[in-house]
Amino acid sequence: MPRNIRLAGAQMGANSLKDTRAQIIDRMVSLLEGAATQGAQLVVFPELAFTTFFPRWPFETDPEVLHYFETAMPNPNVQALFDRAAALKVGFYVGYAELTPEGHRYNSAIIVRPDGRTLLKYRKIHLPGSHEVRPNQKHQQLEKRYFRYGDLGFPVARAPADWGKAAVGMLICNDRRWPEAWRVLALQNVELVCIGYNSAAYDPSGGDTEDAKIRTFHSTLAVQANAYMNATWAVSVAKAGVEDGAGLIGGSLIVDPDGMIRAQARTLEDELIFAEADLDLCRQGKEKIFNFAAHRRPQWYRPIVDQVGAVEPPPAAD
Amino acid sequence: MPRNIRLAGAQMGANSLKDTRAQIIDRMVSLLEGAATQGAQLVVFPELAFTTFFPRWPFETDPEVLHYFETAMPNPNVQALFDRAAALKVGFYVGYAELTPEGHRYNSAIIVRPDGRTLLKYRKIHLPGSHEVRPNQKHQQLEKRYFRYGDLGFPVARAPADWGKAAVGMLICNDRRWPEAWRVLALQNVELVCIGYNSAAYDPSGGDTEDAKIRTFHSTLAVQANAYMNATWAVSVAKAGVEDGAGLIGGSLIVDPDGMIRAQARTLEDELIFAEADLDLCRQGKEKIFNFAAHRRPQWYRPIVDQVGAVEPPPAAD
Repeated sequence: MPRNIRLAGAQMGANSLKDTRAQIIDRMVSLLEGAATQGAQLVVFPELAFTTFFPRWPFETDPEVLHYFETAMPNPNVQALFDRAAALKVGFYVGYAELTPEGHRYNSAIIVRPDGRTLLKYRKIHLPGSHEVRPNQKHQQLEKRYFRYGDLGFPVARAPADWGKAAVGMLICNDRRWPEAWRVLALQNVELVCIGYNSAAYDPSGGDTEDAKIRTFHSTLAVQANAYMNATWAVSVAKAGVEDGAGLIGGSLIVDPDGMIRAQARTLEDELIFAEADLDLCRQGKEKIFNFAAHRRPQWYRPIVDQVGAVEPPPAAD
Repeated sequence: MPRNIRLAGAQMGANSLKDTRAQIIDRMVSLLEGAATQGAQLVVFPELAFTTFFPRWPFETDPEVLHYFETAMPNPNVQALFDRAAALKVGFYVGYAELTPEGHRYNSAIIVRPDGRTLLKYRKIHLPGSHEVRPNQKHQQLEKRYFRYGDLGFPVARAPADWGKAAVGMLICNDRRWPEAWRVLALQNVELVCIGYNSAAYDPSGGDTEDAKIRTFHSTLAVQANAYMNATWAVSVAKAGVEDGAGLIGGSLIVDPDGMIRAQARTLEDELIFAEADLDLCRQGKEKIFNFAAHRRPQWYRPIVDQVGAVEPPPAAD
């Protein structure tokens, strides 16, 4: 029996500091409806979709930054998106800033099923940037300041039958550049990895050697190769465009288990991309060249968990 | 002070079953001389360069297959290559089938310095294929039959000053598709990864869904992305062409730490490619986005060493 799921990526254009949640939710509902009209069963929205990418700004006080966080999911500010999705029987992935009852802050995402129930929740593990404000830098990257490191691991779940019982996993933004994250998903048989991102169109660590072109190349390359090496479908979706003077790359894409691009966004605006995913295309890789049980040699991978940073190799004998 | 090394990839065309070691060494010496003429300091030859890719054939007896193995490196059959390299003061990477004094067989490679001394030795860890002969398959992939799994880990060494003190690492063929292998090298600060390969131009596990085009795409993609994600230069070199009716892809390439292709072979024959590698280009990645000490979270990577094969995720609640 064919195991298919029709995927959509809902790339979003810029959210500025002055945009209200209501304005942003209106755009997201429009994207959702457009996707549903074309038969999408799962719509992937970006990381931190409900607000601007606020970690680029050095907020001085807690109350200022807490404006961008959600204390429950859903909540009245975003309920309209959940209601419309349930009415259309479309599921979705969405990223948001999470504030827990204990006052802990995470960069989180959930996948909501067509019946409105939550299939998966993930808190971003690979937080980029710095904890301290970097002087003389036009835009900050303060994810390490505003968020705790994710504490839910890299979860995978089998979806219900209307999604072909796909083994679905989640990553957020910078995670997609870390092969360890993909591998932990693949070690749970993942067949579809959903990713939302906000990636600067310049070097977010400072310096002037990176531009939108190479940053988009890197974003695309990492998803293609990790999808191939883990024999999985992937949907990776940007918030793009210029937010209050700070550029974000686009390049949202859907990649098959061969690492081939099936659809890619062409604008830096709200834009939908689609692909029909045959989940059984994962079998070629999972059963042959990437048959982990047959070919992996974990006794030689120990430094991956025994070390955090790199160590120097021995010097050459002269 | 600039830290540069001029690299060459010496792609080789087919070695047939009837070719003698002397004939093959003659071609390798020609490639080496051509590379030296154009200033190369390190020339990368393919995996199992001195013979045909013999694991595609089901040899019935030990003496038959032992014909393809080297009992010492160098040895009289290959000495001419070593002598010419030392005379030209050029170093090289070369793959060969190793038979130890204890009778153990490995798919091995060494890197020889310009002064003729061995910098590094590696035995292939990710052996593809099967131990048993697969019936009804035109060509076999019997690396698991003819070789033991490598037992030297993934070694890195700092090269001497004339190679810019590059941190050099080694992989062989199928290893390049395994992100764990690259990561273990990068956790030793690797700046240059040398790889030789023999990759079938068809699905070596059987089936008819893969051709030379997609196999070359995969080979290229894996090296580009792993070079980028580990902020390292890479030289990946094929034995290409048709060996006794069995096709091998080409596509040898040199990739920079941004994952960009600096040179790529265009033929399936003996062909040289070159690039001048500025080792300090690795710093952008190693100090910023892939600063492992700042950003890796090994407590969540445990399945990479605790599991060999994949396990099922939990089923969806219905």
